[in-house]
Amino acid sequence: MTGQRQFHPKGTHVLADLYGASPLLLADAAFLKGAASEAAERAGATLLAVHCHPFGPGQGVAGVVLLAESHLTFHTWPEHGFAALDAFMCGDCEPVLAIEYLNQALQAQSRVLRVMERGADSASGPAQENTSASVSA
Amino acid sequence: MTGQRQFHPKGTHVLADLYGASPLLLADAAFLKGAASEAAERAGATLLAVHCHPFGPGQGVAGVVLLAESHLTFHTWPEHGFAALDAFMCGDCEPVLAIEYLNQALQAQSRVLRVMERGADSASGPAQENTSASVSA
Repeated sequence: MTGQRQFHPKGTHVLADLYGASPLLLADAAFLKGAASEAAERAGATLLAVHCHPFGPGQGVAGVVLLAESHLTFHTWPEHGFAALDAFMCGDCEPVLAIEYLNQALQAQSRVLRVMERGADSASGPAQENTSASVSA
Repeated sequence: MTGQRQFHPKGTHVLADLYGASPLLLADAAFLKGAASEAAERAGATLLAVHCHPFGPGQGVAGVVLLAESHLTFHTWPEHGFAALDAFMCGDCEPVLAIEYLNQALQAQSRVLRVMERGADSASGPAQENTSASVSA
Protein backbone atom coordinates (compact mmCIF):
# COMPACT_ATOMS: atom_id res chain seq x y z
CA MET A 1 0.00 0.00 0.00
CA THR A 2 1.70 3.18 -1.19
CA GLY A 3 -0.84 5.39 0.54
CA GLN A 4 -1.65 7.00 -2.80
CA ARG A 5 -5.23 8.22 -2.95
CA GLN A 6 -7.07 6.04 -5.45
CA PHE A 7 -10.65 6.86 -4.59
CA HIS A 8 -13.24 9.32 -5.80
CA PRO A 9 -14.59 11.76 -3.18
CA LYS A 10 -17.81 9.82 -2.87
CA GLY A 11 -18.62 7.27 -0.25
CA THR A 12 -20.96 5.87 2.35
CA HIS A 13 -20.91 7.05 5.97
CA VAL A 14 -22.52 4.84 8.59
CA LEU A 15 -23.19 6.03 12.15
CA ALA A 16 -23.97 3.25 14.59
CA ASP A 17 -25.04 3.56 18.23
CA LEU A 18 -24.72 0.18 19.96
CA TYR A 19 -26.65 -0.52 23.19
CA GLY A 20 -26.37 -3.30 25.72
CA ALA A 21 -22.83 -4.26 24.68
CA SER A 22 -20.33 -6.13 26.87
CA PRO A 23 -18.83 -3.74 29.47
CA LEU A 24 -15.69 -5.86 29.68
CA LEU A 25 -15.10 -5.69 25.93
CA LEU A 26 -15.96 -1.98 25.80
CA ALA A 27 -13.14 -1.33 28.28
CA ASP A 28 -10.57 -3.57 26.53
CA ALA A 29 -8.45 -1.29 24.33
CA ALA A 30 -6.42 -4.14 22.84
CA PHE A 31 -9.59 -6.02 21.91
CA LEU A 32 -11.18 -2.91 20.42
CA LYS A 33 -8.08 -2.08 18.38
CA GLY A 34 -8.00 -5.58 16.94
CA ALA A 35 -11.74 -5.79 16.37
CA ALA A 36 -11.88 -2.40 14.64
CA SER A 37 -8.98 -3.38 12.38
CA GLU A 38 -10.67 -6.68 11.53
CA ALA A 39 -13.95 -4.85 10.91
CA ALA A 40 -12.31 -2.45 8.46
CA GLU A 41 -10.68 -5.33 6.60
CA ARG A 42 -14.00 -7.19 6.39
CA ALA A 43 -15.49 -4.07 4.79
CA GLY A 44 -12.78 -4.28 2.13
CA ALA A 45 -10.80 -1.27 3.37
CA THR A 46 -7.03 -0.71 3.46
CA LEU A 47 -5.61 0.16 6.88
CA LEU A 48 -3.17 3.07 7.14
CA ALA A 49 -2.95 3.48 10.91
CA VAL A 50 -4.76 2.58 14.12
CA HIS A 51 -4.81 4.89 17.12
CA CYS A 52 -6.41 4.22 20.47
CA HIS A 53 -6.89 6.20 23.70
CA PRO A 54 -7.98 4.28 26.81
CA PHE A 55 -9.52 6.64 29.37
CA GLY A 56 -8.30 4.48 32.23
CA PRO A 57 -8.80 1.03 33.82
CA GLY A 58 -12.39 -0.09 33.38
CA GLN A 59 -13.25 3.12 31.54
CA GLY A 60 -14.09 3.77 27.93
CA VAL A 61 -11.82 3.89 24.91
CA ALA A 62 -11.64 6.29 21.97
CA GLY A 63 -10.06 5.03 18.78
CA VAL A 64 -9.75 5.45 15.05
CA VAL A 65 -8.63 3.32 12.13
CA LEU A 66 -7.41 5.60 9.35
CA LEU A 67 -8.07 4.01 5.97
CA ALA A 68 -7.03 4.63 2.40
CA GLU A 69 -10.81 4.85 1.91
CA SER A 70 -11.35 7.22 4.92
CA HIS A 71 -11.92 6.00 8.51
CA LEU A 72 -13.59 3.89 11.18
CA THR A 73 -13.93 5.38 14.67
CA PHE A 74 -15.16 3.96 17.97
CA HIS A 75 -15.98 5.51 21.33
CA THR A 76 -17.08 3.30 24.19
CA TRP A 77 -18.79 3.79 27.56
CA PRO A 78 -18.55 0.48 29.48
CA GLU A 79 -20.57 1.91 32.38
CA HIS A 80 -23.49 2.38 29.96
CA GLY A 81 -22.90 -0.70 27.75
CA PHE A 82 -22.76 1.82 24.92
CA ALA A 83 -20.54 2.30 21.88
CA ALA A 84 -20.70 5.02 19.22
CA LEU A 85 -19.18 3.93 15.92
CA ASP A 86 -18.80 5.61 12.58
CA ALA A 87 -17.45 4.20 9.35
CA PHE A 88 -16.86 6.41 6.31
CA MET A 89 -15.53 4.56 3.29
CA CYS A 90 -15.08 5.49 -0.35
CA GLY A 91 -14.52 3.17 -3.27
CA ASP A 92 -16.08 -0.27 -3.27
CA CYS A 93 -15.94 -0.82 0.49
CA GLU A 94 -19.01 -1.87 2.44
CA PRO A 95 -18.88 0.02 5.76
CA VAL A 96 -22.08 -1.65 6.98
CA LEU A 97 -20.13 -4.92 7.08
CA ALA A 98 -17.62 -3.32 9.45
CA ILE A 99 -20.42 -2.09 11.70
CA GLU A 100 -22.20 -5.45 11.71
CA TYR A 101 -18.95 -7.20 12.63
CA LEU A 102 -18.37 -4.85 15.57
CA ASN A 103 -22.02 -5.13 16.62
CA GLN A 104 -21.55 -8.88 16.96
CA ALA A 105 -18.03 -8.69 18.42
CA LEU A 106 -19.21 -6.30 21.16
CA GLN A 107 -22.29 -8.44 21.86
CA ALA A 108 -24.64 -5.46 21.49
CA GLN A 109 -28.31 -6.07 22.30
CA SER A 110 -29.63 -3.34 20.00
CA ARG A 111 -28.34 -0.75 17.60
CA VAL A 112 -29.36 2.36 15.71
CA LEU A 113 -27.80 2.76 12.27
CA ARG A 114 -27.76 5.80 10.02
CA VAL A 115 -26.48 5.26 6.49
CA MET A 116 -25.66 8.30 4.36
CA GLU A 117 -24.14 8.86 0.96
CA ARG A 118 -21.54 11.63 0.93
CA GLY A 119 -19.43 13.56 -1.50
CA ALA A 120 -19.74 14.00 -5.20
CA ASP A 121 -18.75 12.71 -8.60
CA SER A 122 -17.07 16.07 -9.09
CA ALA A 123 -16.62 19.34 -7.25
CA SER A 124 -19.87 20.49 -8.83
CA GLY A 125 -22.07 19.36 -5.97
CA PRO A 126 -23.22 16.68 -3.61
CA ALA A 127 -24.15 13.13 -4.38
CA GLN A 128 -27.82 12.79 -5.14
CA GLU A 129 -28.63 9.79 -3.01
CA ASN A 130 -29.12 10.27 0.71
CA THR A 131 -30.65 7.46 2.69
CA SER A 132 -30.83 6.64 6.36
CA ALA A 133 -31.90 3.58 8.24
CA SER A 134 -32.54 2.77 11.86
CA VAL A 135 -32.40 -0.84 12.98
CA SER A 136 -33.05 -2.39 16.34
CA ALA A 137 -32.22 -6.07 16.68
CA MET B 1 -6.09 16.61 31.10
CA THR B 2 -5.95 13.22 32.73
CA GLY B 3 -7.74 11.52 29.89
CA GLN B 4 -10.46 10.42 32.28
CA ARG B 5 -13.85 10.13 30.59
CA GLN B 6 -16.06 12.86 31.99
CA PHE B 7 -18.85 12.88 29.43
CA HIS B 8 -22.19 11.19 29.07
CA PRO B 9 -22.68 8.98 25.98
CA LYS B 10 -24.77 11.62 24.28
CA GLY B 11 -23.56 14.12 21.76
CA THR B 12 -23.91 15.85 18.44
CA HIS B 13 -22.40 14.48 15.24
CA VAL B 14 -21.94 16.84 12.31
CA LEU B 15 -21.05 15.62 8.81
CA ALA B 16 -19.85 18.34 6.47
CA ASP B 17 -19.06 18.07 2.76
CA LEU B 18 -17.13 21.15 1.62
CA TYR B 19 -17.01 22.08 -2.07
CA GLY B 20 -14.85 24.55 -3.96
CA ALA B 21 -12.16 24.69 -1.27
CA SER B 22 -8.55 25.76 -1.85
CA PRO B 23 -6.59 22.92 -3.54
CA LEU B 24 -3.35 24.22 -2.05
CA LEU B 25 -4.72 24.13 1.49
CA LEU B 26 -6.41 20.76 0.94
CA ALA B 27 -2.97 19.29 0.13
CA ASP B 28 -1.15 20.96 3.05
CA ALA B 29 -0.98 18.39 5.84
CA ALA B 30 0.69 20.75 8.32
CA PHE B 31 -1.98 23.39 7.71
CA LEU B 32 -4.79 20.86 8.03
CA LYS B 33 -3.37 19.44 11.25
CA GLY B 34 -3.17 22.90 12.78
CA ALA B 35 -6.55 24.04 11.46
CA ALA B 36 -8.32 20.90 12.69
CA SER B 37 -6.75 21.29 16.13
CA GLU B 38 -7.79 24.95 16.25
CA ALA B 39 -11.29 24.01 15.08
CA ALA B 40 -11.67 21.44 17.86
CA GLU B 41 -10.54 23.96 20.46
CA ARG B 42 -12.97 26.57 19.14
CA ALA B 43 -15.75 24.01 19.61
CA GLY B 44 -14.72 23.74 23.26
CA ALA B 45 -13.18 20.28 22.95
CA THR B 46 -10.13 18.82 24.69
CA LEU B 47 -7.46 17.42 22.35
CA LEU B 48 -5.99 14.00 23.14
CA ALA B 49 -4.05 13.31 19.92
CA VAL B 50 -3.79 14.41 16.31
CA HIS B 51 -2.93 11.99 13.53
CA CYS B 52 -2.49 12.81 9.86
CA HIS B 53 -1.78 10.79 6.71
CA PRO B 54 -0.70 12.72 3.59
CA PHE B 55 -1.30 10.63 0.45
CA GLY B 56 1.64 12.26 -1.31
CA PRO B 57 2.82 15.60 -2.72
CA GLY B 58 -0.15 17.57 -4.04
CA GLN B 59 -2.53 14.80 -3.03
CA GLY B 60 -5.16 14.60 -0.34
CA VAL B 61 -4.76 14.13 3.38
CA ALA B 62 -6.63 11.97 5.87
CA GLY B 63 -6.56 12.99 9.51
CA VAL B 64 -8.22 12.77 12.87
CA VAL B 65 -8.19 14.74 16.10
CA LEU B 66 -9.08 12.43 18.98
CA LEU B 67 -10.89 14.35 21.70
CA ALA B 68 -11.91 13.72 25.28
CA GLU B 69 -15.38 14.45 23.84
CA SER B 70 -14.93 12.09 20.81
CA HIS B 71 -13.36 13.17 17.47
CA LEU B 72 -12.96 15.43 14.47
CA THR B 73 -11.89 13.85 11.17
CA PHE B 74 -10.98 15.31 7.79
CA HIS B 75 -10.40 13.80 4.36
CA THR B 76 -9.39 16.02 1.48
CA TRP B 77 -9.30 15.74 -2.32
CA PRO B 78 -7.36 18.77 -3.68
CA GLU B 79 -8.01 17.68 -7.25
CA HIS B 80 -11.74 18.08 -6.61
CA GLY B 81 -11.58 21.06 -4.21
CA PHE B 82 -13.46 18.78 -1.83
CA ALA B 83 -13.19 17.97 1.87
CA ALA B 84 -15.27 15.54 3.93
CA LEU B 85 -15.34 16.46 7.62
CA ASP B 86 -17.05 14.93 10.60
CA ALA B 87 -17.16 16.18 14.17
CA PHE B 88 -18.68 14.11 16.95
CA MET B 89 -18.59 15.77 20.35
CA CYS B 90 -20.20 14.98 23.68
CA GLY B 91 -20.62 17.28 26.63
CA ASP B 92 -21.10 21.00 26.10
CA CYS B 93 -19.01 21.26 22.93
CA GLU B 94 -20.39 22.89 19.81
CA PRO B 95 -19.12 20.81 16.85
CA VAL B 96 -20.80 23.12 14.33
CA LEU B 97 -18.32 25.81 15.41
CA ALA B 98 -15.45 23.50 14.45
CA ILE B 99 -17.01 22.85 11.05
CA GLU B 100 -17.67 26.54 10.40
CA TYR B 101 -14.08 27.39 11.30
CA LEU B 102 -12.72 24.77 8.86
CA ASN B 103 -15.21 25.85 6.20
CA GLN B 104 -13.75 29.36 6.35
CA ALA B 105 -10.13 28.23 6.79
CA LEU B 106 -10.34 26.03 3.68
CA GLN B 107 -12.07 28.79 1.71
CA ALA B 108 -14.94 26.50 0.69
CA GLN B 109 -17.49 27.92 -1.74
CA SER B 110 -20.37 25.75 -0.57
CA ARG B 111 -21.07 23.09 1.99
CA VAL B 112 -23.60 20.44 2.94
CA LEU B 113 -24.08 19.89 6.67
CA ARG B 114 -25.87 17.08 8.46
CA VAL B 115 -26.38 17.52 12.19
CA MET B 116 -27.46 14.51 14.24
CA GLU B 117 -27.97 13.83 17.92
CA ARG B 118 -26.47 10.51 19.03
CA GLY B 119 -26.33 8.29 22.05
CA ALA B 120 -28.51 8.18 25.09
CA ASP B 121 -29.01 9.41 28.62
CA SER B 122 -28.66 5.77 29.61
CA ALA B 123 -28.22 2.37 28.02
CA SER B 124 -31.99 2.17 27.75
CA GLY B 125 -32.18 3.64 24.30
CA PRO B 126 -31.30 6.33 21.81
CA ALA B 127 -31.57 10.06 22.21
CA GLN B 128 -34.94 11.38 21.12
CA GLU B 129 -33.86 14.32 19.03
CA ASN B 130 -32.58 13.75 15.52
CA THR B 131 -32.21 16.71 13.22
CA SER B 132 -30.40 17.30 9.98
CA ALA B 133 -29.62 20.42 8.04
CA SER B 134 -28.20 21.15 4.63
CA VAL B 135 -26.68 24.55 4.00
CA SER B 136 -25.18 26.02 0.86
CA ALA B 137 -23.46 29.36 1.24
